[in-house]
Amino acid sequence: MPSNPHDERDNAVPASVGIVETRFARLFSDDHPLQFQIGAELASVTVAYETYGTLNANKNNAVYVCHALTGDAHAAGLHSADDEKPGWWDGFIGPGKALDTNEYFVICGNVLGGCQGTTGPGSVDAISGKRFCLDFPFLTVSDIVSVHSELVRHLGIKQLLAVVGGSLGGMQVLDWSVRFPDQLRACVVLASAPKLAAQGIAFNAVGRRAIYGDAGFLKGQYYDSEGPRYGLALARMVAHITYLSEDSIELKFGRRLQDSDRFAYDMQKETEFQIESYLHYQGKRFVQRFDANSYVYLTRAMDYFDLSEGYESLAEAVKNVQARFLVASYDTDWLFPTSQSKELVSALLQAGKHVSFTELHCPFGHDSFLIDLGPLNEMVGPFLEQA
Amino acid sequence: MPSNPHDERDNAVPASVGIVETRFARLFSDDHPLQFQIGAELASVTVAYETYGTLNANKNNAVYVCHALTGDAHAAGLHSADDEKPGWWDGFIGPGKALDTNEYFVICGNVLGGCQGTTGPGSVDAISGKRFCLDFPFLTVSDIVSVHSELVRHLGIKQLLAVVGGSLGGMQVLDWSVRFPDQLRACVVLASAPKLAAQGIAFNAVGRRAIYGDAGFLKGQYYDSEGPRYGLALARMVAHITYLSEDSIELKFGRRLQDSDRFAYDMQKETEFQIESYLHYQGKRFVQRFDANSYVYLTRAMDYFDLSEGYESLAEAVKNVQARFLVASYDTDWLFPTSQSKELVSALLQAGKHVSFTELHCPFGHDSFLIDLGPLNEMVGPFLEQA
Repeated sequence: MPSNPHDERDNAVPASVGIVETRFARLFSDDHPLQFQIGAELASVTVAYETYGTLNANKNNAVYVCHALTGDAHAAGLHSADDEKPGWWDGFIGPGKALDTNEYFVICGNVLGGCQGTTGPGSVDAISGKRFCLDFPFLTVSDIVSVHSELVRHLGIKQLLAVVGGSLGGMQVLDWSVRFPDQLRACVVLASAPKLAAQGIAFNAVGRRAIYGDAGFLKGQYYDSEGPRYGLALARMVAHITYLSEDSIELKFGRRLQDSDRFAYDMQKETEFQIESYLHYQGKRFVQRFDANSYVYLTRAMDYFDLSEGYESLAEAVKNVQARFLVASYDTDWLFPTSQSKELVSALLQAGKHVSFTELHCPFGHDSFLIDLGPLNEMVGPFLEQA
Repeated sequence: MPSNPHDERDNAVPASVGIVETRFARLFSDDHPLQFQIGAELASVTVAYETYGTLNANKNNAVYVCHALTGDAHAAGLHSADDEKPGWWDGFIGPGKALDTNEYFVICGNVLGGCQGTTGPGSVDAISGKRFCLDFPFLTVSDIVSVHSELVRHLGIKQLLAVVGGSLGGMQVLDWSVRFPDQLRACVVLASAPKLAAQGIAFNAVGRRAIYGDAGFLKGQYYDSEGPRYGLALARMVAHITYLSEDSIELKFGRRLQDSDRFAYDMQKETEFQIESYLHYQGKRFVQRFDANSYVYLTRAMDYFDLSEGYESLAEAVKNVQARFLVASYDTDWLFPTSQSKELVSALLQAGKHVSFTELHCPFGHDSFLIDLGPLNEMVGPFLEQA
């Protein structure tokens, strides 16, 4: 494992897993292809993943982290000595943190259909020799989990100590607990839901329409050109609003102006208010790191996810679950409100499962699980120790 | 006044004002131009307006209705005998309703900058002989109100019994009460706010960006071509989500599919869920009746509106108000939440004004003031009688 560059620093700096590397696994084969939920097959899937901490001799200390819609495998640490941006859950993964790398072997893999190293619509199809684009098989959360599950087997791990995820990551945890109940002992589901509500589907529809409407989208075959940069940025802007609480956005930006203390009164000026400038910036930044086709596929997977699909009830759906559950929602999260977590918790209890539930008080809305790591560390740490 | 086509029908059918006509007033002149808040002038403004009921001899029974962002002058009645769609507030205006046309003379004028008969960016500039497009003067809520106020004088009315409006209409009522305190005796402000919150500004920014990003926008000079139909529809889609409550959208659509009881699993299909189909329909319908330039101007006016601007406090801003106020919010309205109405009510009370306030319980979110007219009639009727 990499050394810790923070070792000699002030104690106030949280310990880091140090410098890490993204690795790539080639999973599946002609004899053992990935079977998509709706029937397609892929004989080879590349998965980008990172690991932190050490797998013990009994191979029973592994914790899998499922990232959310636009996350990636780089959940903790730095990619080089001069890297200034640690992984997206660095405050939650590392020595002494909830996902304590002194104790656990933490794995995070980029999702199937993604664009950060794992096979997705931007990858080259071995059969046609061309990029998949919109010919990539229709993708569900179950397909994403099938690949995670295969990666765990590939690493020689029979059973995970826990699977942890927020938002779309939490949906993966839920699917995993139902479809591979033997493979995990504990589940942590944060700011998530057993199915997306109509409002969430509606916002995803707007985002996709922004992408489809961009002349640069070219029905998904844009890899030799600039691509739907404007539409993808717009999709991110609207999604970003839904990740923040009304109070946090008000507190952070209010009606403050961007460039001066007076209105410009200019119809051509799009960034008069700070909140506008912030959203434009978020959109621009997103386009640099994300692929529009992946966005389209993964939001659809999110829309389609319904844990109770094919069952008479949600309680029926979770009846074979073996893992203990920790479920947490955030009081200011209006995209995945507490009521949805409660529905899940009720079903688990009805099915006689072990489940702890809490609604955390945090001002940051849906993004709380990525921002407010203090309460999360306090809660998840002890839960994993019990597991 | 027109006859009532419902006279011989079942008593259960609410009485209507009958067949009405939109009229046009030419206001202002070279000697008395409209002075915009930021300095521009217009020597002639056409206003489309309708009236219902009869102005009494003392001319003291007039009630002015201020419409919201995408409304128009056609607030009640039908435009012809075979017209199937009554005016947008027909359940609230008419014989025996809160705005009782047996008692009151009700006026509704299309807003300045609009696209339904009143001068706006799509109108021809008398000086250049060309349509204004984005050369139309920058518009504020105060400019809209200046035109309403002039229309009232034009109709020979010195003082209104009341001014009533919801959402952006409520903002007009507020501005009116401060800038022309002598001109109105009572104000009804529904689902509105003394200023737009950051979240509202954010959603408006997304809508405008959808329009600007449409190749058909042509910097606003699209009147000889198809115009930014896709972008304007997209703007409406995102706005429409914010008008509905999470619960009402869930109840109305949930996760129900549009065309079958099974997923299509087709990445090209944009309307898999009923909520998607509904939003697409709303977008399409909107494009048929609204102008993108007006949308851009009026959302900006909404963003900029801040009743306390130029004053030390909101209470200071309303200190010259003479009218009595009725303020109502809706418990499921997350675009103009109750807290904003309460801020207004506090300021009015602090300034020693007469104000009644209630939070109505209604599942329909921000749109409640247009949908759930029972409670509104019960509340506003008696308030106007007192006035």
